[in-house]
Amino acid sequence: MKGVIMIIDGMADRPLEKLSGRTPLEAASTPNMDRIAESGINGIMDPIKPGVRAGSDTSHLSILGYDPYRVYTGRGPFEAAGVGLDVKPGDIAFRCNFATADEDMIITDRRAGRIRSGTSSIARTINSMTIEGFEDVEIIFRESTGHRAVLVLRGPGLGDKVSDADPKVEGKPPKKIKALDGSPESRKTAEVLNRIVKESYEILRDHPVNTGRIERGETPANIILPRGAGAVPHVEKFQERYGLKAACIAETGLIKGIGHLTGMDVIDVEGATGGIDTDLESIKNAISSAIAADYDFLLINIDGADEAGHDGDLEGKVRFIERVDSILGDLMGDDIYFILTADHSTPVSVMDHTGDPVPIAITGPEVRVDDVTSFSERAAAAGGLCRIRGSDVMDILLDLMNKKEKFGA
Amino acid sequence: MKGVIMIIDGMADRPLEKLSGRTPLEAASTPNMDRIAESGINGIMDPIKPGVRAGSDTSHLSILGYDPYRVYTGRGPFEAAGVGLDVKPGDIAFRCNFATADEDMIITDRRAGRIRSGTSSIARTINSMTIEGFEDVEIIFRESTGHRAVLVLRGPGLGDKVSDADPKVEGKPPKKIKALDGSPESRKTAEVLNRIVKESYEILRDHPVNTGRIERGETPANIILPRGAGAVPHVEKFQERYGLKAACIAETGLIKGIGHLTGMDVIDVEGATGGIDTDLESIKNAISSAIAADYDFLLINIDGADEAGHDGDLEGKVRFIERVDSILGDLMGDDIYFILTADHSTPVSVMDHTGDPVPIAITGPEVRVDDVTSFSERAAAAGGLCRIRGSDVMDILLDLMNKKEKFGA
Repeated sequence: MKGVIMIIDGMADRPLEKLSGRTPLEAASTPNMDRIAESGINGIMDPIKPGVRAGSDTSHLSILGYDPYRVYTGRGPFEAAGVGLDVKPGDIAFRCNFATADEDMIITDRRAGRIRSGTSSIARTINSMTIEGFEDVEIIFRESTGHRAVLVLRGPGLGDKVSDADPKVEGKPPKKIKALDGSPESRKTAEVLNRIVKESYEILRDHPVNTGRIERGETPANIILPRGAGAVPHVEKFQERYGLKAACIAETGLIKGIGHLTGMDVIDVEGATGGIDTDLESIKNAISSAIAADYDFLLINIDGADEAGHDGDLEGKVRFIERVDSILGDLMGDDIYFILTADHSTPVSVMDHTGDPVPIAITGPEVRVDDVTSFSERAAAAGGLCRIRGSDVMDILLDLMNKKEKFGA
Repeated sequence: MKGVIMIIDGMADRPLEKLSGRTPLEAASTPNMDRIAESGINGIMDPIKPGVRAGSDTSHLSILGYDPYRVYTGRGPFEAAGVGLDVKPGDIAFRCNFATADEDMIITDRRAGRIRSGTSSIARTINSMTIEGFEDVEIIFRESTGHRAVLVLRGPGLGDKVSDADPKVEGKPPKKIKALDGSPESRKTAEVLNRIVKESYEILRDHPVNTGRIERGETPANIILPRGAGAVPHVEKFQERYGLKAACIAETGLIKGIGHLTGMDVIDVEGATGGIDTDLESIKNAISSAIAADYDFLLINIDGADEAGHDGDLEGKVRFIERVDSILGDLMGDDIYFILTADHSTPVSVMDHTGDPVPIAITGPEVRVDDVTSFSERAAAAGGLCRIRGSDVMDILLDLMNKKEKFGA
């Protein structure tokens, strides 16, 4: 038996007047999801616990059976792992923006004109930096998509309780990074980081990529702004924990990072953008191949519905859900327990995650099929699973797959 | 957005043959509660956890997001705070009865003829006591309603693991108070308390209120009987915890005490008796005023249904629920998340609290309205909330009010 968990990011929502009191998922035409609901057992799930506004990262960790309150140290480590950096427990990781600073170090563009090319060359320059007086700290820097990048500091005596450099608005200098807990470890990190920000400007201002950009009338990517510090946690490998060979198909660095940190094979999908314009056919083909391969477990994340929710794009969300539905036609098989759910609600009315529970449906040979006939937030609540938590999902799946030890006699 | 939690104390019940298998809530005509259920999302709630027989105090703490297993040290501290005493963490608080003792210190009336007046004068006399050899212990004493009072001991090295003085039956002397854990701290409390009981008789026997009572043929309130010891806990203020300016409308000292200890404004309501004879119009007016004021959060407790349950008064319980229903007509508003529930079941067949779950309905602009059309223990179980715990309520409410921090990214 194989287990598949498909997470449609941010799909769940709240009732909307514009939809006559329906949610986008209720309003969307989803014959394949409805068939999954009808042939399976349904319920609602609190990714972490009722009312808690889960992030995608904390929710995925919880659904995979990891306690986010113990494992989640910040977004940095997951983003860093997501771009393929081989981070190690104890590393301090950050998300970064490439930004534009003027000669007085005032940030004039927080995203360096949404730079799209040349960032790998800039990243290599940062990656070779050393900070005088802190030669024991290795600086690892890698570009991500667009103006995004990740930074990892590796070395003795570094803490992760530090503030962000990103001033969040333009027209201001980078914020001075401070040790939030006053510890010598975090002070060391803050000092190194302040130096990196300052010296990044000095080594990037005349970087060939930037001189080229300036010649073309584009804003240069001449400074980096770190934020989201976190010490890389020790995460037990998924295969060691559950005895399942696992793969992860995800679009965003954040979820890929969870795949990497839990030791899954992370399968890159060409044309996967993480937006509503993503290539769903390409994702479908990747899923089919992975199911046909020798994996025992597959984690799938499709991100567009969340993006539409954050953008308040009602029509886009409904349409994207319908497009996702269209690839679900023939993914099931007799030897698969398939779980369809979301990681959190991203209501278009709120334009951010909320703590509402999400629908969950489980199909497979031996589930206790219930009376639910459509896949939605409210229909699911009447299902046979009643209300569960994200942390229950792996236990339920492993039990169905007959992979659990008996507790007792 | 404002949040209102209205708790109808002990409203939930069990099916009764006399009601053709319905519960008092099912049998009562409750058009307004049904409208709330119909326009909201419903479920059943275990105030603490399934099968736990919650007290009103422990249930309210749980619903407000405080762990009763950590915060609840006994009834004394909440009763003491409820009469308006400014108790401090570490104080040892007790509930007391004014009682009648004869010359051999035998209790002849545990409630001093249900004394109704003059207790404040008697209380002032106790309040000025000092115990020789224990001059470091401040004795704070305040009358409550009827024959009830509270006692607080403040000073160094006092413990709260002590037995009660109340013999529970008449014809016996006060019980000797003992240190239950054998600690020097509890022994000190027990010694002080035994002295207070004994010396209360000495200073009250000829008290002018008592000589007056004896002249009128009434039993004197000439001794105090402490019970329900508890060290006043440290309780984080509600406003600090949640960022919500909060008020509490309650009838009983116990729930007012929870309001005081959590730092809410406790609004006194004239004519509120805590019984089925309470002035519900007056309570309704207080609620309307509080909703119109600048509070973000309102806790309301109405007590009569619990009293009727304890009295085994089926008809009284049904009628009281109907009277409560009648004041719920126009309390809602567009900017309110309103939660209607109970703190526990007080079945008239049991005449005490039971561990059955209670119905809960949440109305407000963005809830996922379900198919439930009436408010009752059983109808609620089919609702979209499924089964939650008291400790989930504040998280769910804060999320709906958009007051929660996101955990993760």
